[in-house]
Amino acid sequence: MSISDEFAFIKEIQPDRLFHEEKIVGIGDDAAIIGMEEGFEKIVCVDTMVEDVHFTRKTMSPFDIGYKSLAANISDVAAMGGIPLYYLVSITIPKHWEQKDLKEIYKGMKALGDKHKMDLIGGDTTSGKVLVVSVFVIGKVEQGKRLLRSNAQQGDVVFVSGTLGNAAGGLDILLHNNEPSLFLVEHHQRPTPQVELGRILSKFERVALNDVSDGLSSELLEIAESSKVDIFVKKEIIPVSKELTRYNDEKAFHWGMTGGEDFELVGTISADGWPELAEECRKAGIQITRIGNVRHGSGQLYLESETGVQQIQKEGYNHFNRR
Amino acid sequence: MSISDEFAFIKEIQPDRLFHEEKIVGIGDDAAIIGMEEGFEKIVCVDTMVEDVHFTRKTMSPFDIGYKSLAANISDVAAMGGIPLYYLVSITIPKHWEQKDLKEIYKGMKALGDKHKMDLIGGDTTSGKVLVVSVFVIGKVEQGKRLLRSNAQQGDVVFVSGTLGNAAGGLDILLHNNEPSLFLVEHHQRPTPQVELGRILSKFERVALNDVSDGLSSELLEIAESSKVDIFVKKEIIPVSKELTRYNDEKAFHWGMTGGEDFELVGTISADGWPELAEECRKAGIQITRIGNVRHGSGQLYLESETGVQQIQKEGYNHFNRR
Repeated sequence: MSISDEFAFIKEIQPDRLFHEEKIVGIGDDAAIIGMEEGFEKIVCVDTMVEDVHFTRKTMSPFDIGYKSLAANISDVAAMGGIPLYYLVSITIPKHWEQKDLKEIYKGMKALGDKHKMDLIGGDTTSGKVLVVSVFVIGKVEQGKRLLRSNAQQGDVVFVSGTLGNAAGGLDILLHNNEPSLFLVEHHQRPTPQVELGRILSKFERVALNDVSDGLSSELLEIAESSKVDIFVKKEIIPVSKELTRYNDEKAFHWGMTGGEDFELVGTISADGWPELAEECRKAGIQITRIGNVRHGSGQLYLESETGVQQIQKEGYNHFNRR
Repeated sequence: MSISDEFAFIKEIQPDRLFHEEKIVGIGDDAAIIGMEEGFEKIVCVDTMVEDVHFTRKTMSPFDIGYKSLAANISDVAAMGGIPLYYLVSITIPKHWEQKDLKEIYKGMKALGDKHKMDLIGGDTTSGKVLVVSVFVIGKVEQGKRLLRSNAQQGDVVFVSGTLGNAAGGLDILLHNNEPSLFLVEHHQRPTPQVELGRILSKFERVALNDVSDGLSSELLEIAESSKVDIFVKKEIIPVSKELTRYNDEKAFHWGMTGGEDFELVGTISADGWPELAEECRKAGIQITRIGNVRHGSGQLYLESETGVQQIQKEGYNHFNRR
């Protein structure tokens, strides 16, 4: 750690302009004050990335670490149908990290934050043995709007955005020094949170929604359990990219079901609402796929294929089981 | 780390009741949604504690770690004149920490959180080499109320609450295995944020305010710099406790000026407002001391004593310089 003065570093990473200047005060004070907005409620979430657990210097550049740690949080806001507004960063810095690399982390966050007109409004800087980046995001959503995972009902259509497993494929390439697919590697290093789709979904009456952070099967099981329903998905329809099957056709489906960190949105909507949602997404250029349906049940997930029906157990990403 | 399942641990630490149940949804979902309140704005802040930097197993019990990490944040809300409402916890857990100790951390937070009717509404759990506890707190304050450190003006009275240096004295006892003073040790391990005083101060027209997290001289310099004024304090009036002078008379004043982590409130108020503030504090049983005044200047801090006037440079707690 080559920083001789915490205060000087904090000054360096402070933004020189604010998107929501009229709504915020107190940046650099004890705490920030954020104004209220008529008709909106606030969304809050936190996500932490740890060196040698969520990334290594080999798999992620400092810029990527910043970008992805903010992306994971924006994705949580998207999964509530909201608009991200502000972020605070708590960073624990080990001695072996140089100041120029630390600045790159904040640049990575700023690059994605700027796309969403988000302001960095606070944080904390501490020293420690490994790099830990905790990002806290505040967003807003229309008052009373609840895109909860407990909203699924019998008869609903199950949908997912984009293609799945790309981030897992990208990580596999990086870990094994395989021939790079820029498409897959970028999905791992700089994932795109689906804010626009979340906003489209927020206009519908009743939607159950999760972002794919722990893997499709894990997210679907959460929706099934929270909503006390059974979910059936069709194996042949789970969307995986050509890039992924080209890289590893054998593992593509497995990564699609369990890979995690794709930050696509998965959820359920009434059968009546589905055609309108599909049309809205078509107009916005957002890929969305109907992958199954919701039935009366008790929180189970089933995979239907040509060979029969298979029950899926929880097997998504779990920090402690994996290491 | 004996936790075999992150999800099971999260369930264990989830609160079984909520103080603000009608205002929050989404706990355990992708993010929490917090309701707006007519006439109030939100306050947000973050504070992180790292094992072997901010504490060791020798100086702090797991319960204390939880208690203090929340206290530091509540203190920031108090320094904005606000009411703490919610907290989110991101914890990075090393293998050598046992589950029963981790639960103690959350119990420590809950003990203090309950006193302030605060709800735990989210978090993240990751593994890592050292224990890192990041707490994000959300509070509220009346719309337009700004207790900023830039509010000081020439002619103001400088005040501080309680007595200073107790936390530093308590730490010194713990580090050197000296005969314990429960009073001093408790000030280090379970400091009391001054929310009630912050609320009293929020009723006054114009107040500059900081909490004493980095040491009195550092906080006063921040106010002087932000407000572009000079601050003069009288050495003989800086309030230190009998317990501190009894423990180490020689160092008591030094700890009082630079110790940090006392979480008292220091600030300035107009000379007209001071008598009313003093009276309000007397009625509420809160110790408050007039320690100096604000003069025209350029951000300097001066200490007046019988032997003359001395300029004080920044020398408060700085994570990187100290270690």
